[in-house]
Amino acid sequence: MPAQISEFRLTRRVQFYETDTAGIVHFSVFFRYMEEAEHAMWREAGLSIAPPGSDIGFPRVATNFEFFRPLRFEDEFEVVLMIARKSQKSLSYTAEIRASGETVARGALTIACVTKVPGQPMRGTPIPADIADRFAEASGGEAS
Amino acid sequence: MPAQISEFRLTRRVQFYETDTAGIVHFSVFFRYMEEAEHAMWREAGLSIAPPGSDIGFPRVATNFEFFRPLRFEDEFEVVLMIARKSQKSLSYTAEIRASGETVARGALTIACVTKVPGQPMRGTPIPADIADRFAEASGGEAS
Amino acid sequence: MPAQISEFRLTRRVQFYETDTAGIVHFSVFFRYMEEAEHAMWREAGLSIAPPGSDIGFPRVATNFEFFRPLRFEDEFEVVLMIARKSQKSLSYTAEIRASGETVARGALTIACVTKVPGQPMRGTPIPADIADRFAEASGGEAS
Amino acid sequence: MPAQISEFRLTRRVQFYETDTAGIVHFSVFFRYMEEAEHAMWREAGLSIAPPGSDIGFPRVATNFEFFRPLRFEDEFEVVLMIARKSQKSLSYTAEIRASGETVARGALTIACVTKVPGQPMRGTPIPADIADRFAEASGGEAS
Repeated sequence: MPAQISEFRLTRRVQFYETDTAGIVHFSVFFRYMEEAEHAMWREAGLSIAPPGSDIGFPRVATNFEFFRPLRFEDEFEVVLMIARKSQKSLSYTAEIRASGETVARGALTIACVTKVPGQPMRGTPIPADIADRFAEASGGEAS
Repeated sequence: MPAQISEFRLTRRVQFYETDTAGIVHFSVFFRYMEEAEHAMWREAGLSIAPPGSDIGFPRVATNFEFFRPLRFEDEFEVVLMIARKSQKSLSYTAEIRASGETVARGALTIACVTKVPGQPMRGTPIPADIADRFAEASGGEAS
Repeated sequence: MPAQISEFRLTRRVQFYETDTAGIVHFSVFFRYMEEAEHAMWREAGLSIAPPGSDIGFPRVATNFEFFRPLRFEDEFEVVLMIARKSQKSLSYTAEIRASGETVARGALTIACVTKVPGQPMRGTPIPADIADRFAEASGGEAS
Repeated sequence: MPAQISEFRLTRRVQFYETDTAGIVHFSVFFRYMEEAEHAMWREAGLSIAPPGSDIGFPRVATNFEFFRPLRFEDEFEVVLMIARKSQKSLSYTAEIRASGETVARGALTIACVTKVPGQPMRGTPIPADIADRFAEASGGEAS
């Protein structure tokens, strides 16, 4: 079995359309950065979080961010994503955004596994084993 | 039969997240304004452009914008959308964005009617009569 | 003195570009809905949160959302924004997103007042009296 | 003098938040892809299109796209950006979006050089020599 994944690092540059009149990245965009890192982590694990025709999905159930420093156009930054908790039906991540050796923001995201039937409400369901087996909780929980 | 629709006017205010570091609305957002007016025009006609479960769709095939003046945070503006051409399988709109009595930008959009079968390429198909009958080409073509 | 504002309600419809492949509003967009309501509340109070040339600003310092139900294209919803806490240098809001009589999501946002000097880090500063005087904490704290 | 730049290729993957309910990249996002390639081309030329504190800017004056095939979540694609025309006060690019060996979309973008004085309208001005000298028109004009 290939090694389980607990952490993923994504390097990225701020795009112009992600900034606002205040000259900084709009706060809503940090949630997109965190999700970009999540989806790249799934690809690193050999998975897609939304393969075509799948009858399960992973809606976001809770998320937050705290902002310490602004990011500006063309800044390079890193997203350090860690698996904070893996339960039968959900996954929780923490994300740290870093630039120039400083912590820019810290966030978290919890997703749930659901079955998708058109026209019906989503229903929680256990994460399939071939997905759950690819991930493990990070031991520390704090990026270093 | 209710009157056919040829023109629609949408009034809107610039949101903060639509602006960029240059202090103006990002150019890509004007295409969203034009589409917002289009979808509101369809609702005005008693239609949805994307009803749940529909097996036809209306992908965008060509679009353009010319920009004359910037829009800034909290500016109020109007989108004047007109049907420039209605053919068997497509619709073309023109859009004029106005603020404070001035023309801010002028754009156009052509959409095609296609059948959607999962896993297959989209195929052009005639616009269903109950949709096509709701719209008519604007006589002038220029907003006044 | 005009009445202070503690609560604001914004009614809005989901736009197509706010949805994703899962057929629902992307979770990052809820933060934009909350901010739209915030800026409309400030306008209701006779203020702009970002007037041109201002040397103070209101960066977001912390935010979160919990999601209970999805929103889909063309759904109408309401944002109920309340002032949960007003301190000397910051404001905290809670937001409830409602559609069809149900709670769709619940969020919160804290903003700080800072001085903006180009090329220097932002510095916390007391909210000017003519702004602070316009807002009051909501008594209950829960939307009803 | 370093070689002038006429063409730039950017490779990118579709992000989840760039797709819509139709399961494809929203058409407005193609303009962002084109601009991402433009800004990366400027960096490749040793330039920033929006350096902090600059008193000139490059607003977009006209743009268009034609769409041939959809892009979906996680698709990898290439943006081939070419300088179609360089004049004293403006630059025009063409962009071709390609995926899996096929042309997905073709666009164009014209930008103008302007002076920015707060509170005054933008005014056209010649592109500074240290910028203009870095770029040259592509000989063919068609990506190969």
